Amino acid sequence: MDAIEYLYVANIIVKKVTGIHLMNNHKQIQSPSITSPKGFSSSGIKCGLKSSGNLDMALIYSETKAISAGAFTTNLFAAAPVKWCKNKLTKSSYANAVIINSGNANACTGELGDKNAAEMAKYAADLLNITHDRVFVASTGRIGTQMPMDKIKNGIALAVKALSSNGGHDSALAIMTTDTCPKEVAVSFEIDGQTVTIAGMVKGAGMIAPTMQTHPHATMLSFITTDANITPEFLNQALAEAVESSFNKISVDGDMSTNDSVIVMANAMSQTTLLEGKCEHSRTFAEALKAVASGLAKKIVMDGEGATKFVTIEVNGAPTYADARKCAQAISNSLLCKTAWFGGDPNWGRVIAAAGYSGANFNPDKVNLFYDHKQVVKDGGDAGTKEEDLADIIKKKEFTVRIELNSGSHSFSMWTSDLSYEYVKINADYHT
Amino acid sequence: MDAIEYLYVANIIVKKVTGIHLMNNHKQIQSPSITSPKGFSSSGIKCGLKSSGNLDMALIYSETKAISAGAFTTNLFAAAPVKWCKNKLTKSSYANAVIINSGNANACTGELGDKNAAEMAKYAADLLNITHDRVFVASTGRIGTQMPMDKIKNGIALAVKALSSNGGHDSALAIMTTDTCPKEVAVSFEIDGQTVTIAGMVKGAGMIAPTMQTHPHATMLSFITTDANITPEFLNQALAEAVESSFNKISVDGDMSTNDSVIVMANAMSQTTLLEGKCEHSRTFAEALKAVASGLAKKIVMDGEGATKFVTIEVNGAPTYADARKCAQAISNSLLCKTAWFGGDPNWGRVIAAAGYSGANFNPDKVNLFYDHKQVVKDGGDAGTKEEDLADIIKKKEFTVRIELNSGSHSFSMWTSDLSYEYVKINADYHT
Repeated sequence: MDAIEYLYVANIIVKKVTGIHLMNNHKQIQSPSITSPKGFSSSGIKCGLKSSGNLDMALIYSETKAISAGAFTTNLFAAAPVKWCKNKLTKSSYANAVIINSGNANACTGELGDKNAAEMAKYAADLLNITHDRVFVASTGRIGTQMPMDKIKNGIALAVKALSSNGGHDSALAIMTTDTCPKEVAVSFEIDGQTVTIAGMVKGAGMIAPTMQTHPHATMLSFITTDANITPEFLNQALAEAVESSFNKISVDGDMSTNDSVIVMANAMSQTTLLEGKCEHSRTFAEALKAVASGLAKKIVMDGEGATKFVTIEVNGAPTYADARKCAQAISNSLLCKTAWFGGDPNWGRVIAAAGYSGANFNPDKVNLFYDHKQVVKDGGDAGTKEEDLADIIKKKEFTVRIELNSGSHSFSMWTSDLSYEYVKINADYHT
Repeated sequence: MDAIEYLYVANIIVKKVTGIHLMNNHKQIQSPSITSPKGFSSSGIKCGLKSSGNLDMALIYSETKAISAGAFTTNLFAAAPVKWCKNKLTKSSYANAVIINSGNANACTGELGDKNAAEMAKYAADLLNITHDRVFVASTGRIGTQMPMDKIKNGIALAVKALSSNGGHDSALAIMTTDTCPKEVAVSFEIDGQTVTIAGMVKGAGMIAPTMQTHPHATMLSFITTDANITPEFLNQALAEAVESSFNKISVDGDMSTNDSVIVMANAMSQTTLLEGKCEHSRTFAEALKAVASGLAKKIVMDGEGATKFVTIEVNGAPTYADARKCAQAISNSLLCKTAWFGGDPNWGRVIAAAGYSGANFNPDKVNLFYDHKQVVKDGGDAGTKEEDLADIIKKKEFTVRIELNSGSHSFSMWTSDLSYEYVKINADYHT
C-alpha cells in the first residue's frame, strides 16, 4: 500500500506544481516520521492504559517554541483534551509539545476530566521546563472512564525521558487503537537553498466521517510537524485548506468522534524567509502540507476497519458545492454500496439510489455514472456495458466511482472503503 | 416474535383508546391477511422473475371500487411504478386493484420502464374488466433492468385467475425479496354494530431508512386494505399520520429505496356511516390504521437483514421536533452503535458520540441516558451504573435506549436493529 501512497503523494505534487518553481525540488522522505523536520524529538512508551500491554503514550517535542494551529471535532461532546487545546490556542499560538495517550478518550468525564487534561499538560510542562500553555493534549480510546492519573503521570515522566530524534516511529505506534499499522508521511522541498520538511502521523481506522458543511475539522488524531518559518495566520489558513481537501474527504463508517484533532507545529528551524501566504514559497508550503494531509487521510481509509478496498467517489456537475458534497457523502456512507463493493458486485442501482436520496438537487434523467473509465449509467438508465466488465472493476482493490450530474459546475470527491464481516467483528468486540 | 407484535398492537390501542368508546371493541385478527376486510381477494403466483423459482407476482383486488391513497419515496430516482401510482392518484382516488411484482424494480429504466409500468396496469385492467386508472403498480427487486414483459403478462393472467378470498398469504409471500418471513397484520373494530377491518402486508428487510423532515413517505412496499367507508380527504390525512408514526420511524441501514410505496384502499363494504375525520369513529379508524402500520413497521425491523435485536430509540427534551428526530436518526443509523449492540456491549460512548454529531442542538452537560430503566449517563458523564448491569440489558433481544436532552420539550422515537455479520453477507451476495 505504501507504493500507492507515495505515488499518490508524488502525483499531487506533480499535478499541482505546474508553475511553482521550487516544487520541482520536492522530496519524499523514505522513512518518514514526526521527527523528520529539524528540531523535533519524540517518544512512545507503555504506561499500562492498554490491557494489551502495547505502547500507549506518545510525546512530541520541539526544542524551540513553535507556531501552532489546530482543527478539532465539531461533536457537541468534545472531549476534555479537545477543550484544552482549543482554549490553549485562544491564548497563544506558541507551543513546544504534544502529550498523547491511547486507551482512554477522556471524553464525557465532566469537570474531573477537564482537570485531568489540564493536569497532563501541566505535568508534562514541568518536566520539560516550559509553561503549561505550550503543551497540547490529545487522548483516544474508550469514552466515559476517568483517566488513571497515577499511570498517566508515570507515563509522562517515562515519555519525557525517552525523547529522541529517533523516537517518531515509537510515537506513531503508541497512538494506535484499532489501527493495524502506524501511519506516517513526510515530504521536503527547498526555499532558496534551505530544506523545509513537513511530517505527519495519524491514528484512526474507525469512527471516521467528515463533518458536514462549512467548518474544517479533523476526524481522527493527526499530528504534523514542520521546520518551516511561518506566520500563525498563514499556518491556520494552510491547515484549514489542507484539512478540507484531505481529512474532510474520507469516510469509513459515517461516525464522528468526540476526540478528532489535527495539530500542527512549525518551529522555523529551516531558517528560511518567513512564509506569510503571499509569496510563491507560501503556495509551495501549502501544497506540500496538503500532500502530507492527503497522504495521511488515504492511509486511514486504507487501514479502515476491515476494509478490503479503496474507493474514490467523484461527483461532478452539481448545481452547488453543497449538492456535490451531499451526493458524495451519501454514496460513501451507504451500507448497501459498501457491502456490494466488498462482494465485488457492480450493483449500480445502489449508487444511483444513494445519489437520489442524498438531498442533492439534480435532474435524474441527465445522470451519467462511470466505474473507472467504463460508463455504467447514461441519462439515468443502463448504459449497456457488460456486467462482467463492470464486475472486473469492482473486484479490484482500488477503483473510482464517478457520477456526472450534468446539472451545474460544482464537484466534490471523497475516499472511502468497503464494508466487510471484519468491520462488524472489530466493532462488536472492541474494548480498549 | 408474533407474540411481541400482537401485544404491541394491543398496547397501542389500549394506550390510545382511553376515552374512545368504540375502541374497546377492537379485535386483533388471529390469521391476518390482506383479504381479511370484506370484499377483497388476492393471489400470489410464480411467473419466473425470481431465479429462485419462488412466488414473484401478487394481485390485490376489491370487488367494488375503493377510495385509495398513497405515500411514496422521495428519492429523485423514483421508479416507473412509483411515477405511475403518483400520476394515477392525481387523476382519481378510486381504485380496484394493485398489481405487484418482485424480482425487478423497474427503476432507472427510462421511458421504456414508464411504458412497461403503464402496460402492467393496462393489461391487468383489461383482464379485470376495469379501466386502467383503477390499477396501482408496484415493483421491487434489482434496479436498472428492463421488465421481461412476456413473463409479466403471463404472470398477470395467472394472478387474475388465481384471485381468491384465501389468497392473501400467497400474495404476502410473493412480494418478499430478502425478507425471511411474510409480514401481515390486521385489526378490526365496530362502528354502530358493524365490523370494520383494516389489514396490511409489507415487504422490506434492507434498504430501509426514514426520509428526513417534513414529507411523510414510505420506506418499503406496504399494502393496506380496509372495508371502512371513508372520504378520500380523511383517508389521505389518516395515512399521512400513520406513516409518520410507523414507517418513518424505522431504520435498518440508513438507505432509502427508489421504490418505497404505501398504498391503502378502502372499499366501504363495512357499510357504516361515512368517516369524514370529525367524528369519534374517525379517530377510532385513524388509531387502528396507526396500529396496523406500526405493527407492519415493527415486523420490518424484526426481520431486518441479519438483525438479532430490536432496539427502540427514544429522544426527549429536544428544543425542536427536528432536533429530536436528527438525534434519534443519528443513533439509529450509527454503525458503531449497531455493532456494539450486536456484540452485547453497553459502550455508551458511541451513543453519546452519535447524539453529539447528529446536528441536533442541545447542552451536552445536561444529557441523561438510560438503557431500559437503568441510568447510564447523568449530566453528560458516567452515571456509575455497573457495566455488568448495563451489559445484561444490551444482551437482551429487545431493549430501549432513551436519551433525555433536557434542552426543550420535543420528542421523537425510532425502532431499529443491530448490525451483524449476516447483514454484510446478505448484501455482499444479493442478486435477485
